[in-house]
Amino acid sequence: MNSFLNAKDLGDLKEALREAAEIKSDRFRYDTLGKNKTLLMVFFNNSLRTRLSTQKAAMNLGMNVIVLDVNAGAWKLETERGVIMDGDKSEHLLEAIPVMGSFCDVIGIRSFAGLTDRDYDYAETVYHQFVQHSGKPVFAMETATVHPLQAFADLITISEYASKRCKRPKVVLTWAPHPRALPQAVPNSFAQWMQEADRQALPLGGSKAGIDFVITHPEGYELDPDFTTGATVEYDQRKAFEGADFIYAKNWSCPGVTHPAGYGKILHDYHQMMHWTVDAEHMEWTNHAHFMHCLPVRRGMIVTDDVIEAPSSLVIPEAANREISATVILKRILQSL
Amino acid sequence: MNSFLNAKDLGDLKEALREAAEIKSDRFRYDTLGKNKTLLMVFFNNSLRTRLSTQKAAMNLGMNVIVLDVNAGAWKLETERGVIMDGDKSEHLLEAIPVMGSFCDVIGIRSFAGLTDRDYDYAETVYHQFVQHSGKPVFAMETATVHPLQAFADLITISEYASKRCKRPKVVLTWAPHPRALPQAVPNSFAQWMQEADRQALPLGGSKAGIDFVITHPEGYELDPDFTTGATVEYDQRKAFEGADFIYAKNWSCPGVTHPAGYGKILHDYHQMMHWTVDAEHMEWTNHAHFMHCLPVRRGMIVTDDVIEAPSSLVIPEAANREISATVILKRILQSL
Amino acid sequence: MNSFLNAKDLGDLKEALREAAEIKSDRFRYDTLGKNKTLLMVFFNNSLRTRLSTQKAAMNLGMNVIVLDVNAGAWKLETERGVIMDGDKSEHLLEAIPVMGSFCDVIGIRSFAGLTDRDYDYAETVYHQFVQHSGKPVFAMETATVHPLQAFADLITISEYASKRCKRPKVVLTWAPHPRALPQAVPNSFAQWMQEADRQALPLGGSKAGIDFVITHPEGYELDPDFTTGATVEYDQRKAFEGADFIYAKNWSCPGVTHPAGYGKILHDYHQMMHWTVDAEHMEWTNHAHFMHCLPVRRGMIVTDDVIEAPSSLVIPEAANREISATVILKRILQSL
Repeated sequence: MNSFLNAKDLGDLKEALREAAEIKSDRFRYDTLGKNKTLLMVFFNNSLRTRLSTQKAAMNLGMNVIVLDVNAGAWKLETERGVIMDGDKSEHLLEAIPVMGSFCDVIGIRSFAGLTDRDYDYAETVYHQFVQHSGKPVFAMETATVHPLQAFADLITISEYASKRCKRPKVVLTWAPHPRALPQAVPNSFAQWMQEADRQALPLGGSKAGIDFVITHPEGYELDPDFTTGATVEYDQRKAFEGADFIYAKNWSCPGVTHPAGYGKILHDYHQMMHWTVDAEHMEWTNHAHFMHCLPVRRGMIVTDDVIEAPSSLVIPEAANREISATVILKRILQSL
Repeated sequence: MNSFLNAKDLGDLKEALREAAEIKSDRFRYDTLGKNKTLLMVFFNNSLRTRLSTQKAAMNLGMNVIVLDVNAGAWKLETERGVIMDGDKSEHLLEAIPVMGSFCDVIGIRSFAGLTDRDYDYAETVYHQFVQHSGKPVFAMETATVHPLQAFADLITISEYASKRCKRPKVVLTWAPHPRALPQAVPNSFAQWMQEADRQALPLGGSKAGIDFVITHPEGYELDPDFTTGATVEYDQRKAFEGADFIYAKNWSCPGVTHPAGYGKILHDYHQMMHWTVDAEHMEWTNHAHFMHCLPVRRGMIVTDDVIEAPSSLVIPEAANREISATVILKRILQSL
Repeated sequence: MNSFLNAKDLGDLKEALREAAEIKSDRFRYDTLGKNKTLLMVFFNNSLRTRLSTQKAAMNLGMNVIVLDVNAGAWKLETERGVIMDGDKSEHLLEAIPVMGSFCDVIGIRSFAGLTDRDYDYAETVYHQFVQHSGKPVFAMETATVHPLQAFADLITISEYASKRCKRPKVVLTWAPHPRALPQAVPNSFAQWMQEADRQALPLGGSKAGIDFVITHPEGYELDPDFTTGATVEYDQRKAFEGADFIYAKNWSCPGVTHPAGYGKILHDYHQMMHWTVDAEHMEWTNHAHFMHCLPVRRGMIVTDDVIEAPSSLVIPEAANREISATVILKRILQSL
């Protein structure tokens, strides 16, 4: 595996879940696989869960880890050719990236969307520069438009809890209010992975295969069709929630699909959108659904205290599965070296 | 051992000193004990000695280490329930801490006193949140009111030097001037450990057990009785120093015990307090005492160059023993997993 | 080897190159040599290549690594005795350095020139403080006046490419324009290593030993004679380039040798110096020379896109050899412990 960005990069998801379960039962099963192999984690943005879980995953496999925090402000990379570099950019990516690739065996990249230039963000420019110029396998630790380690952890979590209670899980991705403009990486990947699981007719519930996947959000927040084609979009949040087995809440800013000028913006004052907050009444509309969120979460905005603290909330096991998803990905990369 | 905050958490100090001596004679004796165990070091404040010595200790035991520097300004945790989190706090501790606990086996916490809210500081709020919500053993790498890794290193140092020269060591903790307001963590722990050593009649000197422990400081700087009950307080620095075998100098701000309104403040302009600086004349009052300080130390304020550079100064071996105290604590935690 | 600052510290360069080739053919050949040994990397300045390559080198040898980023602004060390430390310096180097030495086995130092006080910089004050007070072997990861890990990597690179094509390589160090004032560490070390290779009559080319080394720069940029004595200085860049096999480009600020008042300054507006930029026409003057630069490099200022991207450019293999030079140095230090 030379790149990990999308659900399809994993191939058969049933096999991927089998590997996840194997790692979870013994996370040090492959602890010599990474001997004398070095993971370089490059952070252009802050990180808590990804930083800790990916380091842990690499150490589970016996890898060495180097963490590089790139202060985006202090170290601006020139990307164009033919430029006289007499400004604030002191290095060209055509040197910086091959050099980073020289000192490691695998590279993880965290590089958030800038939320101003949709084409630049959705081309995954920074990520693909590393793929093209590093000479090493690269994986996304949340990039401009995707967060596959999170989505894989989410799928693992759903597989663990779905099998116990439903035939074919109904999974609802719901927008929720937030005071700041956030990227679409998490909802994009979650939608993509749920759709791919359904396409592969992944056996998750008791008797029927696949996922009944529904997305609900206010008008204007339509996600990019590359990630959602085939998914049901239901603008009425209550209708969407009916019969749901899993509620996956997340805020995202305008993806610029139906409102191109709004890309990366908050379309309505969040005070007007508080009826989208997932509270106990919302959860009563569901089929005793589990609550999920990728964290960090703002309580009172995305979800109320009682819902996130309820026994049916999966936010902590979901976060803990980040170690499992990262271990599987790194294991596959190491096995393909 | 599930938490390490106080002298009593170590139980029998004689046994603890035996383990320290064992580690010191072969610091890699237990270098497989920590295999596939991960220490997470969480720093809410800067650190030099603690950062280096605790990492070194973990590596002595074969552990993996993840260092997390939490910029207190950038990552404010909400601690209340029922709050609409639309301000600058983007995560609730009830999510953040269990998540951190998911990716490690042991957690070290550095979190200094804010020095504005005495109740909050002395309740050790941050530390206890980690104990309660992380699900993992937690130890203090200097918290609001204690610095037990330092105090244990100090005790090890005293045990190494006392046995050579005195029957029952007289140990004096002396306040000294400083231009900034400092926490009480170091003097609190030092006092607590000295008192506990005396209570256990720890055999340190040649023939008599325990420690003759005296605290001296200007009026207003009385330490919290929880840490000092039973200790002799002598406001006359000269009288305190007479016959001393060890002088332990440290500045601390007002603990707010006798002067509640002064909590966390400097009570007198330090220019007026320079007669408290430990110089050669002060040391002449003692029984050829060893000089100790936890470092970093401001020369000319706390102590003069000649005293800290004298052969009787123990500041470097004392700092080096930080590796030993941390290795013993981590060893005990690993053995109890 | 107790200190690594200069070419002479390596002794016989032929043997050093043999060790480099051995490491390059199997970089994990000595992967147990560093067991239970800890490298402390102390950064007073930013780093990308040195940070990554030196960590990788230490891990190649099975060492533990602790990285300490010292914010020069936040942690000012007092260096004088007899001072009352009531200002912004909270620790004295006479405590800080021995303490750092207590928790590791080897220390790497990055500490750039301040470019204001020539005597202070050229005395290598910070580096020698570590040598004198840490009690541990110390090596330079670019200090005020030298960058030996870079120069050794450069020599390895020249040895790899010279043997294939020339009898006795002509190596030209050329100044090139830059918008900011840069230290002289890289050109100093490069000149020193080339001269030492010549002095030892190192067999690099096909039949003749040593290096024909020429330095070219505008008047006023004369390097310190301690590093260049015996080297040819040619102010006419075109004459210098004629017949060259290797062009090593680098900017440096005024070394203050012929222009003492200009130390650390840019002597001419760089817009007037753009004829020094290495472009295709410059390279045509040479004997199909390889282009070298230590990186990071500003394109359009130091070198044009076509030259740095040409097959004859060695900037990436040169950077990759930083892992090799660092591994050899650390191996030697470990073998001497």
